[in-house]
Amino acid sequence: MTGFPDINKIAYEGPQSDNPLAFRWYNEDEVVEGKTMKEHLRFTVCYWHTFRGTGGDPFGGGTMQRPWDDGSESIENACNRAKVAFEFFEKLGVPYYAFHDRDVAPEGATLSESNANLDKVVDVLDAEQQRSGVKLLWGTANMFSNPRFMHGAATTCNADVYAYAAAQVKKALEVTHRLGGENYVFWGGREGYQNLYNTDMKRELDHLGAFFHMAVDYAKEIGFKGQFLIEPKPKEPTKHQYDSDAAACLNFLRAYDLMDHFKLNIETNHATLAGHTMMHELEYAGMQGALGSIDANTGDLLLGWDTDQFPTDYYLTTQTMLVLLKYGLTPGGVNFDAKVKRESFEPIDLFHAHIGGMDAFARGLKVAAAIRADNAIDGFVADRYSSFDSGIGAKIESGSVNLKDLEAYILDKGEAVPNASGRQEMLENIVNRYLDRT
Amino acid sequence: MTGFPDINKIAYEGPQSDNPLAFRWYNEDEVVEGKTMKEHLRFTVCYWHTFRGTGGDPFGGGTMQRPWDDGSESIENACNRAKVAFEFFEKLGVPYYAFHDRDVAPEGATLSESNANLDKVVDVLDAEQQRSGVKLLWGTANMFSNPRFMHGAATTCNADVYAYAAAQVKKALEVTHRLGGENYVFWGGREGYQNLYNTDMKRELDHLGAFFHMAVDYAKEIGFKGQFLIEPKPKEPTKHQYDSDAAACLNFLRAYDLMDHFKLNIETNHATLAGHTMMHELEYAGMQGALGSIDANTGDLLLGWDTDQFPTDYYLTTQTMLVLLKYGLTPGGVNFDAKVKRESFEPIDLFHAHIGGMDAFARGLKVAAAIRADNAIDGFVADRYSSFDSGIGAKIESGSVNLKDLEAYILDKGEAVPNASGRQEMLENIVNRYLDRT
Amino acid sequence: MTGFPDINKIAYEGPQSDNPLAFRWYNEDEVVEGKTMKEHLRFTVCYWHTFRGTGGDPFGGGTMQRPWDDGSESIENACNRAKVAFEFFEKLGVPYYAFHDRDVAPEGATLSESNANLDKVVDVLDAEQQRSGVKLLWGTANMFSNPRFMHGAATTCNADVYAYAAAQVKKALEVTHRLGGENYVFWGGREGYQNLYNTDMKRELDHLGAFFHMAVDYAKEIGFKGQFLIEPKPKEPTKHQYDSDAAACLNFLRAYDLMDHFKLNIETNHATLAGHTMMHELEYAGMQGALGSIDANTGDLLLGWDTDQFPTDYYLTTQTMLVLLKYGLTPGGVNFDAKVKRESFEPIDLFHAHIGGMDAFARGLKVAAAIRADNAIDGFVADRYSSFDSGIGAKIESGSVNLKDLEAYILDKGEAVPNASGRQEMLENIVNRYLDRT
Amino acid sequence: MTGFPDINKIAYEGPQSDNPLAFRWYNEDEVVEGKTMKEHLRFTVCYWHTFRGTGGDPFGGGTMQRPWDDGSESIENACNRAKVAFEFFEKLGVPYYAFHDRDVAPEGATLSESNANLDKVVDVLDAEQQRSGVKLLWGTANMFSNPRFMHGAATTCNADVYAYAAAQVKKALEVTHRLGGENYVFWGGREGYQNLYNTDMKRELDHLGAFFHMAVDYAKEIGFKGQFLIEPKPKEPTKHQYDSDAAACLNFLRAYDLMDHFKLNIETNHATLAGHTMMHELEYAGMQGALGSIDANTGDLLLGWDTDQFPTDYYLTTQTMLVLLKYGLTPGGVNFDAKVKRESFEPIDLFHAHIGGMDAFARGLKVAAAIRADNAIDGFVADRYSSFDSGIGAKIESGSVNLKDLEAYILDKGEAVPNASGRQEMLENIVNRYLDRT
Repeated sequence: MTGFPDINKIAYEGPQSDNPLAFRWYNEDEVVEGKTMKEHLRFTVCYWHTFRGTGGDPFGGGTMQRPWDDGSESIENACNRAKVAFEFFEKLGVPYYAFHDRDVAPEGATLSESNANLDKVVDVLDAEQQRSGVKLLWGTANMFSNPRFMHGAATTCNADVYAYAAAQVKKALEVTHRLGGENYVFWGGREGYQNLYNTDMKRELDHLGAFFHMAVDYAKEIGFKGQFLIEPKPKEPTKHQYDSDAAACLNFLRAYDLMDHFKLNIETNHATLAGHTMMHELEYAGMQGALGSIDANTGDLLLGWDTDQFPTDYYLTTQTMLVLLKYGLTPGGVNFDAKVKRESFEPIDLFHAHIGGMDAFARGLKVAAAIRADNAIDGFVADRYSSFDSGIGAKIESGSVNLKDLEAYILDKGEAVPNASGRQEMLENIVNRYLDRT
Repeated sequence: MTGFPDINKIAYEGPQSDNPLAFRWYNEDEVVEGKTMKEHLRFTVCYWHTFRGTGGDPFGGGTMQRPWDDGSESIENACNRAKVAFEFFEKLGVPYYAFHDRDVAPEGATLSESNANLDKVVDVLDAEQQRSGVKLLWGTANMFSNPRFMHGAATTCNADVYAYAAAQVKKALEVTHRLGGENYVFWGGREGYQNLYNTDMKRELDHLGAFFHMAVDYAKEIGFKGQFLIEPKPKEPTKHQYDSDAAACLNFLRAYDLMDHFKLNIETNHATLAGHTMMHELEYAGMQGALGSIDANTGDLLLGWDTDQFPTDYYLTTQTMLVLLKYGLTPGGVNFDAKVKRESFEPIDLFHAHIGGMDAFARGLKVAAAIRADNAIDGFVADRYSSFDSGIGAKIESGSVNLKDLEAYILDKGEAVPNASGRQEMLENIVNRYLDRT
Repeated sequence: MTGFPDINKIAYEGPQSDNPLAFRWYNEDEVVEGKTMKEHLRFTVCYWHTFRGTGGDPFGGGTMQRPWDDGSESIENACNRAKVAFEFFEKLGVPYYAFHDRDVAPEGATLSESNANLDKVVDVLDAEQQRSGVKLLWGTANMFSNPRFMHGAATTCNADVYAYAAAQVKKALEVTHRLGGENYVFWGGREGYQNLYNTDMKRELDHLGAFFHMAVDYAKEIGFKGQFLIEPKPKEPTKHQYDSDAAACLNFLRAYDLMDHFKLNIETNHATLAGHTMMHELEYAGMQGALGSIDANTGDLLLGWDTDQFPTDYYLTTQTMLVLLKYGLTPGGVNFDAKVKRESFEPIDLFHAHIGGMDAFARGLKVAAAIRADNAIDGFVADRYSSFDSGIGAKIESGSVNLKDLEAYILDKGEAVPNASGRQEMLENIVNRYLDRT
Repeated sequence: MTGFPDINKIAYEGPQSDNPLAFRWYNEDEVVEGKTMKEHLRFTVCYWHTFRGTGGDPFGGGTMQRPWDDGSESIENACNRAKVAFEFFEKLGVPYYAFHDRDVAPEGATLSESNANLDKVVDVLDAEQQRSGVKLLWGTANMFSNPRFMHGAATTCNADVYAYAAAQVKKALEVTHRLGGENYVFWGGREGYQNLYNTDMKRELDHLGAFFHMAVDYAKEIGFKGQFLIEPKPKEPTKHQYDSDAAACLNFLRAYDLMDHFKLNIETNHATLAGHTMMHELEYAGMQGALGSIDANTGDLLLGWDTDQFPTDYYLTTQTMLVLLKYGLTPGGVNFDAKVKRESFEPIDLFHAHIGGMDAFARGLKVAAAIRADNAIDGFVADRYSSFDSGIGAKIESGSVNLKDLEAYILDKGEAVPNASGRQEMLENIVNRYLDRT
């Protein structure tokens, strides 16, 4: 008994539908910029929040009603839950899911037992993937929940814990490979520090670099071709996460010679906790060839922790899709790393939440495509920088002038004056116009 | 008439002095870790805030009483102001000062005129340096105040403005070289964006990289051996500054092959606006060989803009000095990029402010040195990571194991359990104990 | 020469217009909930930002091109500027404007001279109001820009400054009364503190309470019937503004027996700087009968200062209008206390900015009215609390039960269990649906 | 087996002690301003964090080693834990403790069972209080952890839940009364909202007002004379807590006629989450006669959630004690509502943490008393406002002048000019001097 709506799949009823459980914008077969929405958006349900989230928070216990789940840590419950998850994926009509190792299968008394547990559930996942056609966007290892990782995993102060983490990643890579995962993600849950007084940051980062190289080597050994991703987040649960934002991640990847092997999995709520917009982080990664995938959620900008809410803001989804259409998303996806509110405890809320998020992204896709079709923003930008297309600007770009040349040029020219307004207000209005029309 | 205290130099009266204008901790000749305080701290007065700050803010005009300044933009006023500044440096007993080109000399109607103005004032600065022995820590060009730079300088959308900025940096480098400046700083006042809708971030950063290479080349040409520095700040006046924090700066330097030529000038208030502690930014830069100099001020962590207050918090100065003693500061300095409050409008407030800041750093130096002498923190840290000094940990560090080896090790070992508390509370108490004793 | 578009009034061209200077949603005569849009929205242009804003910021000087303004502080320039302002109000089609005394007329060498200057410009404003039909939403006194107010006005530590502020308010009340102003606003620019070490908060607040009572008494004496308003803001330029948010304002008004005389002027950017949503502050004031007027702008939630940007976010305007339709706005208005970006320096940007803001509010009005027409949110809310409409809930509301009764009830009943999800995700989707349809 | 240090009480060893578990500043019998430190500081251990905290956080499970606790929810375990707690209180030498009902005794299947459980543990607490002399600072009811309270307790949308909360408070009042509790605290864990779309704020606050009146009435009925306290916090776990800061609490108390019955329990971390300093909240409450008690902890100002760390910053404790010495604290106390870090999992860390906090407050007390003895800050403040002690200032304070009088005065006087700097930098230096000397 799942409590899910008694339909095979929530029907597409069009923008004027009254049914709050109907898609208004997402029509997986609709073609935009030469690809279907399904191909563009690559929607992914995360197993963690949606099937393991309890509604617990630091001030109170779980609230979620999940009638299919007996609350136990048994393999049977884990296998049954996996089947329910696929029922949900299918009813929702998403092509992908993603998981951490410990989400899908219970941790055992030993690593061997944990691995065996994982294998049993992976059998079910494999069968369900075959049956349903739903695919694995990425797998990963949870190396932050168990108390053993309190001081970090690849950046722990304890060599045994490091070895344990390495073993766990090895298994997670194998499992991801078996299930045809298209990516493998590292979110460094406790890779950071609580306090600098007790921390050797350089030694920890050296360990982290070595860890990633071992993962790359092992992937090669087993023939896993998926994309490696790291996920920026500035803080929480630690005071400082080493992968604090896209810039910190890329500086690390460059310093440890890992740029060829890793891209970034950018999350909205992590971007804003770092003081950046989602659009900034996406563009910053994209322009450096490092945009891999996205965690599609939203934070509350007036709150200072990771609320991981479902995204419903059309401005956010439009801005996100403007960048994704520019740089492409494959083999990444739009992964709803989002949780229903603690007070939204009924199974039906999972549908409200995901449908809202999918619809918001579908509309964002359409608005962004309309803006791009008219060259409404890019045309303005190209014109704004046109003084670099010829004359002294072109020489600057070609590297054929130096400080003396430029001094001579400007002494001759006299003053330099900006020739045009930045037109921020007009551009914001233009985005609203496309939102109005689409 | 300066209104400055009628003493040649504020006397060192010792920790129990009642005189609020006496140093209690700073004794420039006192030796700590084998060097005098003066050599360690390399205190620097910034010309900008201290001699050009008006007390104006977005909601009201200037308040400062500066009886020596006639308020005009004449060369005479500029030259007289420079002499007063050196009187201040000497009375305060600081070995260094720093300036932007437009702080010391008025901007003319043309670049030629501006350069001529600058030369006249530099003659005075040169003479005053010779007379007093006060030296130039760094020079820089102000490329953010003039409206021409509204869209940026090296990251402007306008090629003429870029050329103008290049010419200005050429002159500023020459002047800094002439005055024996030990560093040259870039603070990218408007190098960033207000809105991504009108911005080509990649093109702007490419231009910035080229700009820095031209500066490096020209420095070589004229024989300037000073250290180049860039200064991280996340926002203000722009929404996003490209040099947002140490990580963003270093990623940029790596991407544009500039790591050999640049280090970072870390500022407390900029660090905290970016969501980092000063200690973090210092350690992060230091461990990558990129710690150049510091802007010694403080922000108000409950306010979201750059308050540039004078530093008086002993915890901040102790933490800062712990890192500076570890990595060294020369040829950088402790530059008070700080301003007296708008309501502290009397000349004597400049003394209260600088003496408070110098004293706080001197005490921080002594506390940090005492902690280091006892190995009170570093010893704890070394012990905490000792599992990497031998056995499996040492193999990890030497790169002689891979994921399979580590899996085998942990399967054999069984569980991995952190063996010790992080002891954050004890460490915080230990710092207080050293603060008590020093 | 104003540089304004050569039209009498920007025409309403409907939602599909291509003209970025055309209204798409605002049609002043369109009737919504029984009143025209013009009557609902009471749009107001603020003189301060729009006609006195220079584009200066803490890091650089003014940028704005205002060809009608000779930059002088002459009366002639002030009078000419006032006429241009009315040309702008008319072309834009707004029914109201608002000003501070020192915006419209230059400060003289003495208060008498300042008052005389003000009278001369008020003659022009009066004539222009008569000619055009544009009305004064509110007047106020600028008691924060002049250095005399550095320590505050009604909360200064200096009795003479307090007296000066009182005299200035007296004049501003007279002028507002003469011009038929419908409200009188106090924004306490420097009513707060920079540091508690030098502040007697109680004494300052007592002075502020007395000041407001004097203003109320004088308004009565001269027959001014307009609504008094105070405007919450948490910080900037001071560290702590006494009117920090709606709660602080109302606590002050209650403590000093001023609730009958004052309402609140709520500003979006001030709300968010205080950590609240605009919708919260509006509802909080409204439910206490204290919602007076709004300053319609927006901040950047990732920046910590007052950016005063023009509002273009449909979610913000919809939420705002949901509350304004509930409590009513008259005699308040939708005042664009917003400034064009420093880089939007051309006169035409003033049109882009205001049209964008007006349109966004017009659309918000339509969406909010559609939601209300269907009882789409309020109906859900009413149902959610229905357990208080009868039975034990009704007894609780009527005050007829005590702790013992409630204990007896629940001991008898057994457990209490929340009977329904909060449905936050569904409600967010519903708002999007109304945004889609309108 | 507790793992606690094998001493009856941590000895006072003086400021130069090497023992990290020795008090350096806290000597309970030392007299300051006519009272012993023990009488001034009224240190209180909170049962919640110290004996029920697990180290769990949103990203991982518990870590704490508590060898005396069998982890079960049995009464036996609860009673045994209570005895260990008193052992801890005594070894630490604190005179007070505080608890929520559900901290000390397990929740049963029904309210009756929960009450019976509570009674059994209260028997132990009572006996331990008699035996040890340790007293109860305050009791309270936990009305936020159980899922029943997901939508709030006194502000729930569900009347049965409200009744349940009322019954729980009735019992908690009885128990607090029985144990001689000197205060009763309400922290409205979930009294607020997650989203305004589903919330009737007015109705919820009316319910809350009625709830508090019922509590006041019942206290009177049973003869409980303790002080009622409410505790401001702006957010977390809800998006908006109704008791968001001192101003919001006092506005509520005034609006619902509860000012005679309630004071505030001010917490540092809650103050800073609301954007205020602790000193501000204390002074704001104190000047309105509403300062009741404090929760002595600290947050991390660069993190946006409640970290509840132990306070060790001497500036914080000095500022806090400056206000507490001014307004008095009795019958409140210095309650360590603080938790050891998740990584500080050993029992000994509880001693490090509390000793650090107690010592920091003891030193803050001594520094504050020294400042007060010299009138070093208050004297400056009194002088700063002296223009209100006579002349026009005195008339303003006596209410004998109006706007016209003040206008006449200033027109006659001419200009008003602030006569002195605010001297913020000097005052900060003075505080450092007292920190140096004490």
